[in-house]
Amino acid sequence: MGADRPADKTASTSVAIDALIAKRWSPRAFDHAKPVSHAQLISLFEAARWAPSCFGDEPWRYIAWDRGRDEAGWQKAFACLSPGNQQWVKNAPLLLASIAGSEFSQSGKPNRWAQHDTGAASENLVLQAASLGLAAHQMGGFDKEKLIAAFGIPSGFTPMAMIAIGYQASPDLLPPDYKARELASRTRKSLGEKFFEGEWGAPMTMTGLPD
Amino acid sequence: MGADRPADKTASTSVAIDALIAKRWSPRAFDHAKPVSHAQLISLFEAARWAPSCFGDEPWRYIAWDRGRDEAGWQKAFACLSPGNQQWVKNAPLLLASIAGSEFSQSGKPNRWAQHDTGAASENLVLQAASLGLAAHQMGGFDKEKLIAAFGIPSGFTPMAMIAIGYQASPDLLPPDYKARELASRTRKSLGEKFFEGEWGAPMTMTGLPD
Repeated sequence: MGADRPADKTASTSVAIDALIAKRWSPRAFDHAKPVSHAQLISLFEAARWAPSCFGDEPWRYIAWDRGRDEAGWQKAFACLSPGNQQWVKNAPLLLASIAGSEFSQSGKPNRWAQHDTGAASENLVLQAASLGLAAHQMGGFDKEKLIAAFGIPSGFTPMAMIAIGYQASPDLLPPDYKARELASRTRKSLGEKFFEGEWGAPMTMTGLPD
Repeated sequence: MGADRPADKTASTSVAIDALIAKRWSPRAFDHAKPVSHAQLISLFEAARWAPSCFGDEPWRYIAWDRGRDEAGWQKAFACLSPGNQQWVKNAPLLLASIAGSEFSQSGKPNRWAQHDTGAASENLVLQAASLGLAAHQMGGFDKEKLIAAFGIPSGFTPMAMIAIGYQASPDLLPPDYKARELASRTRKSLGEKFFEGEWGAPMTMTGLPD
């Protein structure tokens, strides 16, 4: 894998999975000169909007800051990121925040699935980015209280992630430590460590598969 | 849309989204006579396994009960479902549970993204089901404590959903109230209600899109 072009890190799996799911990953090298169109942003949001949720509550909220449309808003959002993330997010033309409610909107009762369902919506969103040929990188490294204060996020709503989106660029433009991570292989724990059959802790049987 | 064949409820969106994301929905009519192969189950788990997670912690766990391989296990899991869900899950050959950790495995510190990330993994899983021509339906309606006791789920892990999986069948085999829901249009709140631009509560601009 050369460093002169965007890194391709398609997942290595024991049986085939859908090409879109396999190709999605979380790059850090963004092309600052290639904006994301407004129609593309709406496509990302439409994908999130059609995620499933408990009782159909749609407990998620998203805020978008498009640098090409609102430089000041983008900078205000960017300022909420950790210094480490700022080193590479500076080239991403589009920033989002994903936010989870805490109560069902109908009943006002606690919604214990709100963060889970927001994660599902965000997965749709980042897969839609991959489908559009965009790169998306979700981050937990931001100042949650600063974001809440800066954008008037009401109580009862919890910022989950900030998301950098744009076209992928060469790893060469990253600081050395981030460049190394951009080029490293993607890894996951072995399937049997997290995926069980019949009982807790009983690793999924992997025998008897077609060649 | 006739009731004599499986319902197709592709999402209606303002701009195009990926066909896989658009076609995924949560049917209740399953074909009890068509099993899910073990290779298909592993494919579902591989898709979940490659979801993104905070610090790469992979905080999710899944347990599978395949009725064709372990009838007793499937029945024990089925018994944890709400009576309403049991009315239609009885025809699903495969049951899963998704479970979220609460701490980062490296540091032992609380992982506030664990449920969010588990939701993302499950979204990959149900999209992979759609990619394989299977139907998947996540449920919050189950007895969490009963599931924990029945399968030895340790403290610090929270069952999030049970998931029914199989091939889709005609809505005709559902009880009347569920049949009506199977045939009803899928709906979501308008995009601007949940998706904001620049500030909390400022609806996403939908003008200026290509025709």
